[in-house]
Amino acid sequence: MGVELKRNVKDAWWRSIVQERDDIIGMDTSILMNPKVWEASGHVASFSDPLVECKACHLRWKADDLTETKCPSCSGELTEERMFNTMFKTFIGPVEEDAAVVYLRPETAQGMFVNFPNALSTGRKRLPFGIAQQGKAFRNEITTGNFIFRSREFEIMEFEYFIKPGTQDKWFEYWLNERYQWYQKLGIKTDHLKLHHKKKEELAHYALAATDIEYDFPMGWGELEGIASRGDFDLTQHASTSGKSMEYYDDETKERYVPYVVEPSVGVDRAILVFLCDAYDEEPDKDEIRVVLHFHPDIAPIKVAVLPLSRKENLAAFARDVYKDLRPCFATQYDDTQSIGRRYRRQDELGTPYCVTLDFQSLEDNMATIRERDSMHQIRVPVPALKNTLLAKLAGEDLFVLPEGGKIWKQG
Amino acid sequence: MGVELKRNVKDAWWRSIVQERDDIIGMDTSILMNPKVWEASGHVASFSDPLVECKACHLRWKADDLTETKCPSCSGELTEERMFNTMFKTFIGPVEEDAAVVYLRPETAQGMFVNFPNALSTGRKRLPFGIAQQGKAFRNEITTGNFIFRSREFEIMEFEYFIKPGTQDKWFEYWLNERYQWYQKLGIKTDHLKLHHKKKEELAHYALAATDIEYDFPMGWGELEGIASRGDFDLTQHASTSGKSMEYYDDETKERYVPYVVEPSVGVDRAILVFLCDAYDEEPDKDEIRVVLHFHPDIAPIKVAVLPLSRKENLAAFARDVYKDLRPCFATQYDDTQSIGRRYRRQDELGTPYCVTLDFQSLEDNMATIRERDSMHQIRVPVPALKNTLLAKLAGEDLFVLPEGGKIWKQG
Repeated sequence: MGVELKRNVKDAWWRSIVQERDDIIGMDTSILMNPKVWEASGHVASFSDPLVECKACHLRWKADDLTETKCPSCSGELTEERMFNTMFKTFIGPVEEDAAVVYLRPETAQGMFVNFPNALSTGRKRLPFGIAQQGKAFRNEITTGNFIFRSREFEIMEFEYFIKPGTQDKWFEYWLNERYQWYQKLGIKTDHLKLHHKKKEELAHYALAATDIEYDFPMGWGELEGIASRGDFDLTQHASTSGKSMEYYDDETKERYVPYVVEPSVGVDRAILVFLCDAYDEEPDKDEIRVVLHFHPDIAPIKVAVLPLSRKENLAAFARDVYKDLRPCFATQYDDTQSIGRRYRRQDELGTPYCVTLDFQSLEDNMATIRERDSMHQIRVPVPALKNTLLAKLAGEDLFVLPEGGKIWKQG
Repeated sequence: MGVELKRNVKDAWWRSIVQERDDIIGMDTSILMNPKVWEASGHVASFSDPLVECKACHLRWKADDLTETKCPSCSGELTEERMFNTMFKTFIGPVEEDAAVVYLRPETAQGMFVNFPNALSTGRKRLPFGIAQQGKAFRNEITTGNFIFRSREFEIMEFEYFIKPGTQDKWFEYWLNERYQWYQKLGIKTDHLKLHHKKKEELAHYALAATDIEYDFPMGWGELEGIASRGDFDLTQHASTSGKSMEYYDDETKERYVPYVVEPSVGVDRAILVFLCDAYDEEPDKDEIRVVLHFHPDIAPIKVAVLPLSRKENLAAFARDVYKDLRPCFATQYDDTQSIGRRYRRQDELGTPYCVTLDFQSLEDNMATIRERDSMHQIRVPVPALKNTLLAKLAGEDLFVLPEGGKIWKQG
């Protein structure tokens, strides 16, 4: 189910950023790029962590993480801090020599910057417009962990929004607000989110402003998404390294300039962790505890479960027909094992928003029960109305808005 | 548009292999895995190409590609063949030492093999069942090119179908047929496809059978997808390296055995090349040539274009409302530049199956014209029926099946 959850989070982002907007186009650039890209961007020179090494056991440690002046492993003496580049390097072509060193990208942004002129010439777009990308990135982190919060191989979804210099404050506010709202629209609780506006001394040297959207993770507040106002730093750097102009010509105002950029960037894996943590609940239910994932329907890996009350063949055949009918429209699961109560619990744990139950009465009145995960309320609707009713509920309609012939079945 | 085409190809595969089946689950494993995985799989020892080096200029060449015995670049003398491993290697952790060497995966399959016990214990599946994955892979190829036919960084979609030993011939035939049909269902012309059944001497030493689905690329016939009957080679190798059993216990027959595997594997980039090449056509149209991509609707990056006949504000407002209504359902593009003829041509070149045109009469009769890309026939339908009509056409309904109030507008 994890892979379906990941697909849903990525798809929801892609829909809202690329497919439902006219001003952002998608792109897919490679992980292995010309190493000059990383020289131009400053990653080769400065994308590094200060490390210390133990003179006894030779383990290396992130200087920032140490509270003592001795090796946490063997209490040995530590060296002075040295900078260690966190990009992974490999060798392209048949010979392992310096000329063929390439790096695994530590972010996806630079691929979009160097392709800005291509996007301009093929995308038929005018400023302001953006380029969006999702893909793997790699950082040779010393300290990984906190579940999937920090890992060496991870996935990023980010976009570069190119604007006219002078409009950066407006667009920075706009995107900060949009991105903050996106999490709330998908069900993340407001009091689990906060903004961390970076102070001057916290900013990268080229950044005009930066704000992190932070989440209250199980291990404490941490960065979920960063929104940065990057000015024209990246485009200017790539233009001077490649000798290729990164200027934009505005044919309405007849002006020519290097665009400024606002960049919202989020780790897919962190987003998944946030959706999981925020959805998870243990609720008292009579004498038991109900474990439930309150996923927003867009995020839930399974949207609908079809549960025949028994395996008797006439009922099973009926239920399989319903399943076959729903399946092309929704991610649907069929489950005929164990008691209906156990099966409801399993779907609650999976975060399935709606269960459809078929019982022996269904064979007579051609009606099915829809049970809502969060409220556990149930309605009874004609089978021919099932698909449209589920579509409406998944789009946010109240459970008790009934189709023709439907009725409230059970409250709570 | 390329990235949307790629998404559509990947989504179509994922739907048919994972979401519309009960017997295959999705998975997403990492690119950087423990190097022992590649020792167990045999990739460290034997995933290599025979190369020769020029003694003068030191360039290396794939021995198979050479027709002469001299360096193609400088005519220098060549060395004997040596084996060169085509996996990219990098170093994990802060020290570049052998203990920390890791490889970028040259395929995605091994991640699924080593996770077979996890899939068994969490997937609630019985044999036969499969594990499917899409993701990047890397091979340090000497000879790249033929567009995106062979590159060093590429994307694979493949699945491992685990079966009871003895049933491999049946399942090999089944999957060969399924996969061959998949391309045809998505519009690939039958005479551009053929099967290459590998002879005994062409098989990998562990393979029981293997067949390539080949496509007639612009540069000649080449492999599009490989279907292999791999026996229990992979699971047995991983079990013996890890010491962890890869056996399956069948609780119906009380048997315990290591499953056999059938693996259909296709390069996403090659599939894209096939869909592009096969869809491309130059058709005479009066005195001109019409360039058109006959994409299957599932593959087309844009499904519908909304084209107001003029930019006059009352018509533009009407057209934008139609656009707003269609957009949540389909990938839709709005275009109000240039003549309608030029705009049709642009959509033909993009492969958009249907154009919706709004004209001044639309303002009076609330009707819109739907123009079909392939036939260039047009029908006229009530605007409220537009969404459902387009849904039906995209699902394969004949253009001339009309909704209530609709009429044939123009033939050819």
